[in-house]
Amino acid sequence: MKELNVAIVGGGGFMGYAHSMGWSLAPVAAETGAKLRKKLVVEADDERARATAERYGWDEYTSNWRDVITRDDIDIVDIVTPPAAHAQVAIAALAAGKHVFVEKPISNDIAEAAQMAEAAERSGVVHQVGFNYRYTPALRFIKRMIEDGTLGQPLQFRGHYLQDNAILGRTLSGWRANRSAGGSGVVGDIGSHLIDLAQYLAGNITKVNAVVRAKNPAEGTGWLTNQERLDGDLLDDAALWMGQFESGAVGSFATTVYASGRKNRLFFELECSKGTVEFDWNRREEVKLSLLSDPADQQGMRTVIMNQTHDDFWWPMGGMGIGYVDGTAIQLQHFVRAIVSNGIAAPGFAEATQVQRVIEAVMISGDKEQWIDVEDNKI
Amino acid sequence: MKELNVAIVGGGGFMGYAHSMGWSLAPVAAETGAKLRKKLVVEADDERARATAERYGWDEYTSNWRDVITRDDIDIVDIVTPPAAHAQVAIAALAAGKHVFVEKPISNDIAEAAQMAEAAERSGVVHQVGFNYRYTPALRFIKRMIEDGTLGQPLQFRGHYLQDNAILGRTLSGWRANRSAGGSGVVGDIGSHLIDLAQYLAGNITKVNAVVRAKNPAEGTGWLTNQERLDGDLLDDAALWMGQFESGAVGSFATTVYASGRKNRLFFELECSKGTVEFDWNRREEVKLSLLSDPADQQGMRTVIMNQTHDDFWWPMGGMGIGYVDGTAIQLQHFVRAIVSNGIAAPGFAEATQVQRVIEAVMISGDKEQWIDVEDNKI
Amino acid sequence: MKELNVAIVGGGGFMGYAHSMGWSLAPVAAETGAKLRKKLVVEADDERARATAERYGWDEYTSNWRDVITRDDIDIVDIVTPPAAHAQVAIAALAAGKHVFVEKPISNDIAEAAQMAEAAERSGVVHQVGFNYRYTPALRFIKRMIEDGTLGQPLQFRGHYLQDNAILGRTLSGWRANRSAGGSGVVGDIGSHLIDLAQYLAGNITKVNAVVRAKNPAEGTGWLTNQERLDGDLLDDAALWMGQFESGAVGSFATTVYASGRKNRLFFELECSKGTVEFDWNRREEVKLSLLSDPADQQGMRTVIMNQTHDDFWWPMGGMGIGYVDGTAIQLQHFVRAIVSNGIAAPGFAEATQVQRVIEAVMISGDKEQWIDVEDNKI
Amino acid sequence: MKELNVAIVGGGGFMGYAHSMGWSLAPVAAETGAKLRKKLVVEADDERARATAERYGWDEYTSNWRDVITRDDIDIVDIVTPPAAHAQVAIAALAAGKHVFVEKPISNDIAEAAQMAEAAERSGVVHQVGFNYRYTPALRFIKRMIEDGTLGQPLQFRGHYLQDNAILGRTLSGWRANRSAGGSGVVGDIGSHLIDLAQYLAGNITKVNAVVRAKNPAEGTGWLTNQERLDGDLLDDAALWMGQFESGAVGSFATTVYASGRKNRLFFELECSKGTVEFDWNRREEVKLSLLSDPADQQGMRTVIMNQTHDDFWWPMGGMGIGYVDGTAIQLQHFVRAIVSNGIAAPGFAEATQVQRVIEAVMISGDKEQWIDVEDNKI
Repeated sequence: MKELNVAIVGGGGFMGYAHSMGWSLAPVAAETGAKLRKKLVVEADDERARATAERYGWDEYTSNWRDVITRDDIDIVDIVTPPAAHAQVAIAALAAGKHVFVEKPISNDIAEAAQMAEAAERSGVVHQVGFNYRYTPALRFIKRMIEDGTLGQPLQFRGHYLQDNAILGRTLSGWRANRSAGGSGVVGDIGSHLIDLAQYLAGNITKVNAVVRAKNPAEGTGWLTNQERLDGDLLDDAALWMGQFESGAVGSFATTVYASGRKNRLFFELECSKGTVEFDWNRREEVKLSLLSDPADQQGMRTVIMNQTHDDFWWPMGGMGIGYVDGTAIQLQHFVRAIVSNGIAAPGFAEATQVQRVIEAVMISGDKEQWIDVEDNKI
Repeated sequence: MKELNVAIVGGGGFMGYAHSMGWSLAPVAAETGAKLRKKLVVEADDERARATAERYGWDEYTSNWRDVITRDDIDIVDIVTPPAAHAQVAIAALAAGKHVFVEKPISNDIAEAAQMAEAAERSGVVHQVGFNYRYTPALRFIKRMIEDGTLGQPLQFRGHYLQDNAILGRTLSGWRANRSAGGSGVVGDIGSHLIDLAQYLAGNITKVNAVVRAKNPAEGTGWLTNQERLDGDLLDDAALWMGQFESGAVGSFATTVYASGRKNRLFFELECSKGTVEFDWNRREEVKLSLLSDPADQQGMRTVIMNQTHDDFWWPMGGMGIGYVDGTAIQLQHFVRAIVSNGIAAPGFAEATQVQRVIEAVMISGDKEQWIDVEDNKI
Repeated sequence: MKELNVAIVGGGGFMGYAHSMGWSLAPVAAETGAKLRKKLVVEADDERARATAERYGWDEYTSNWRDVITRDDIDIVDIVTPPAAHAQVAIAALAAGKHVFVEKPISNDIAEAAQMAEAAERSGVVHQVGFNYRYTPALRFIKRMIEDGTLGQPLQFRGHYLQDNAILGRTLSGWRANRSAGGSGVVGDIGSHLIDLAQYLAGNITKVNAVVRAKNPAEGTGWLTNQERLDGDLLDDAALWMGQFESGAVGSFATTVYASGRKNRLFFELECSKGTVEFDWNRREEVKLSLLSDPADQQGMRTVIMNQTHDDFWWPMGGMGIGYVDGTAIQLQHFVRAIVSNGIAAPGFAEATQVQRVIEAVMISGDKEQWIDVEDNKI
Repeated sequence: MKELNVAIVGGGGFMGYAHSMGWSLAPVAAETGAKLRKKLVVEADDERARATAERYGWDEYTSNWRDVITRDDIDIVDIVTPPAAHAQVAIAALAAGKHVFVEKPISNDIAEAAQMAEAAERSGVVHQVGFNYRYTPALRFIKRMIEDGTLGQPLQFRGHYLQDNAILGRTLSGWRANRSAGGSGVVGDIGSHLIDLAQYLAGNITKVNAVVRAKNPAEGTGWLTNQERLDGDLLDDAALWMGQFESGAVGSFATTVYASGRKNRLFFELECSKGTVEFDWNRREEVKLSLLSDPADQQGMRTVIMNQTHDDFWWPMGGMGIGYVDGTAIQLQHFVRAIVSNGIAAPGFAEATQVQRVIEAVMISGDKEQWIDVEDNKI
């Protein structure tokens, strides 16, 4: 059994917390073929690094991120810093032959993301970006039904990601609060998960058209106009966009952090030529499914509850319950299994870069108020 | 108590059926201040007219629509013919001083609709267009919560209207099948209800941007491109569009008749500055409601079931059950009450014309692939 | 086409209102083979009778119920008086050869009910009792799936009927308020619908065991003990009971009028040897259905929305919406069709008497705190 | 920070798996004030013990359970063996001053359970039994609303626990299959969770009345009669029971493993004098809640999604997702915090014994077909 030591860079924040849980749970929950060790945590200063190591159960700590590159006993580098810091660490780690896991977004800068993807391609190591929702068993089940033809061809995707953080008065702070400081806005932050899932299931998006909005902070009642948002250099907190897929499918997307009563609601429905599926993260064990092949008087949306017949469902009994930590652990297990088998992990850096291209196109479309081709947005 | 005699034009079709039920139920279900009589039915030929009168309980019949104009004992003319025939009958009836109810769409021809609105304005009689879904108690409750400030300012509307008729192989026939014959496509047919509800709740839409599609009839697997649809002069059977409202709110709309497992699913959710509401026609007694004023640990979407405290709920006990016929009857009651009180019914012809302008803008946007101003679409 | 004149006895109350709507809608909504006329309404005094006739659209009125017996032009007698008055009118009407529809409960007195059943048997006319929920298309669909073997053998039935009338402070008044005055309590009033549906689907109940409670009116916080309830001669406002069916199935039942947030919630789930069904009156177009024959990874509760493939669904499009009035009309259509075809209507007086026997056994069990055989409860 | 070493006895089975995940996650997910170490695993033979240690990440292993008693470096003994083996290990561990966690049921033998409770009482150490569902944040939120008076007094509890294991042909094996071998049947196995939750929320149950059934294995279509089940010494696979609570509340309970489409569905609804709550394990982040204090036109069941304002919700954002492993970890955190603070853990051995008394009364009631007092069932 391969022994793999993990180092986490930026382990003291929200994603450091989630990944620490994920690395603790992953090896117990299902076999990966490797023995994993939570070896080293990197944080901004020694005290924060020490406290993080103690709090989240890492063996050692450092405030010098280059340690994870230079130390021979580190096999995996897990980068959960703010996005602006991803590239430097990732490229160095790839050059040093480490397997690299990067939290999403891979980078808010397309050129930088492309550079990372190129470096990853060259390196030959295993690389993956943290689009964790893909690794919920429900999503993998839907993916399988598309791949094996059960659902037929995707026709129309409609998704939204709703939160109530901003309407409850919880404003962003630190690097998340400011576009110039590397904040993503709702499209880049939570909308990116929608884009990843849409492309995962229905193939690449080629054109988008968006309405991007920021709420008027002064009055607290309505949206700023597009021009007011741009003039104020504000982050978007609500957006709608439409997408056209390479396959001919069409999609509609929405996101906002002003949705009272909605808690982290990542939702989509997808109509295909042979059936319909619906998924709601708040009820993540359930796939709603209608199949055209059912008799007309028995046809309708079924609630399939994940069970032992579904991939990556690691409990011995259906309905036992999957949480956020489970998806985090499952994505890490896939990453580890790719290392063990000399395989390829997904989504890799190139695929994650494509998500950023769509985001970029959405933002440009929001500014210019016209359709934007995804491949043309790099100029 | 005023006695009012009703004539129905085109009473033998689907809407003739629904309205016949509505006119039978309306006076029993709630007081309107008038005594109503199902007096006269008009159909294309005498035999069809006679059979319709017998089947749906109308006193008399004729195959000459001008009878409803010339007969002095007709007070109300209810026009449920195919849309292309609305204008002629309506304008004549208005001129004769009859109160006129027209099924939606008022007309698929904007110029004609505008002419009807103008005639209605001049006439001084009561006129209304059949956007029946507005008259579900749930919708009136949501409207009231917007008007009285409970919900605050509308921010984001997302709605869809899904059917499975086409994916089940039930193709359109007759005038409904063909654009040149007056068929509406999904945007004009069912999408129009979404537009009406969105404007009813959040005010007028000023700009739209659409993707309009028709399914490839040959292969049955994917959508035609926009150009293929236009070249084939086909009716749209799926569409997505975004709208910007005068108020600053934004909206996302979708409709398709290729949604397996969905049966007449008119659905929307609307985020406002003080709360969120959600409505699903399949569960039409329920308003889902979240209020920002609730304590944080008790906040969430409530399922309010319509009861005696809600307008137009005519049962003595909450949860007794509202069906399609109820909304049909309620809209007719409102029409009759406007007649009795010399009031104004809604939506009137001008308001219904505005819905058609939005539809027209959606179709132009789908063709041109750009944002279209609603007020500019008349050229 | 047969012409049938209807007289309604007690037409001014809640059920008079509902049945007036039902008689108005029934002939328009679907063909019954008869021409129906709302001929005569009977109420306690002339003024009330006159007002009811005008309000609900009956041709004539009287305050002498014997008119419905003696008049030759009355074909159907619809009895919607308080239950204590049912027997006298029904037995006279049967003797006069009228077809008789009686609202449930047929009678709160078992001996009287049995006498009515016997008279009905002798008469040879069509007789039916108003268990309207059976006639929701969803219920008929479930019944069909049991009859044709789709669901296999019923194993476990669990149902409840919840209202919030009492907890909202809406207390019963008039004859409904008092046991000695003929009030039914929750078991007899709303629980009876549960019993009827359970027996309709799973066959006769042979033994019951109940907890019957009344809420303490003084304190408003807890239930009285059984003894306190009996001593106070109070009507039950909450009850639980278990039933054993002739078939070997078992059942669990609950009802209360102290359920905050519940509006007329008639709900059950039924597990069978080949599948499960679930029904909720608040979502009455939906049958939730799981079939054991589905592949294990696609198995789950489907939401089948009633459509043209289901019996008594009279709309041309699935999901069009069924309300309380629809079920009322459908049961009357079945009654009329039985008259036209010289057939048998259901549930007839004997079947309705069996429901009363179960109710009686439940009440005795609640008093005695032991299992009570349904056939032994007559002593 | 206290260092605590954990030993797990019977760590290779289902609960050993779940608890290994729980012990891995607990210290990372939230602070407990202790440093925990997964020190020692006990299994039936050395090879199984070794494999379990490696698979689930325990430092050391043994096949001699007495090692956990005699070794000074073991602070916590977590017993997840089959129930028949609980008492011997637990009593020895208590005597040795270890803190003891025992999986439910504490014992299927009441006398033995009482003996364990007595030993625990004497020992002064921290003891807890694994009723994990209590430790879902939703349950703790409901409990809090009862304790602080938000919901008022519990009136009616209705719960069920449904699985489809048996109807899918997954039969029990090993010690679980046979009553004499220590198997629990559905009442003792999954019904026990219902009983624990009901008593947790509404206080002790004093009387029960049950129908207990086993399915006919020969025909696979119906239930055996009670007598046939007893004669065959079969385990129950379906049961219904009613309970009367000390507080005056009443309850209805059901469980079966023949529920097609149901996956581990632990569900209850509880009506109280000031509101209603509903919980469904399959949607475990949600508490459905109606409050009588809401305005009548806004009253209804809310879906409150667990968030930072709820106890033991350890994620920084509402709706992040709670799974089976989370509840397992939370209960262990509470156990550890009780150790650190010299406090008392719940449910302790005495409280778990009370659950067994109710189970015993249910089984006796099923046999005798009469009400059984919970305190009298020991004879």
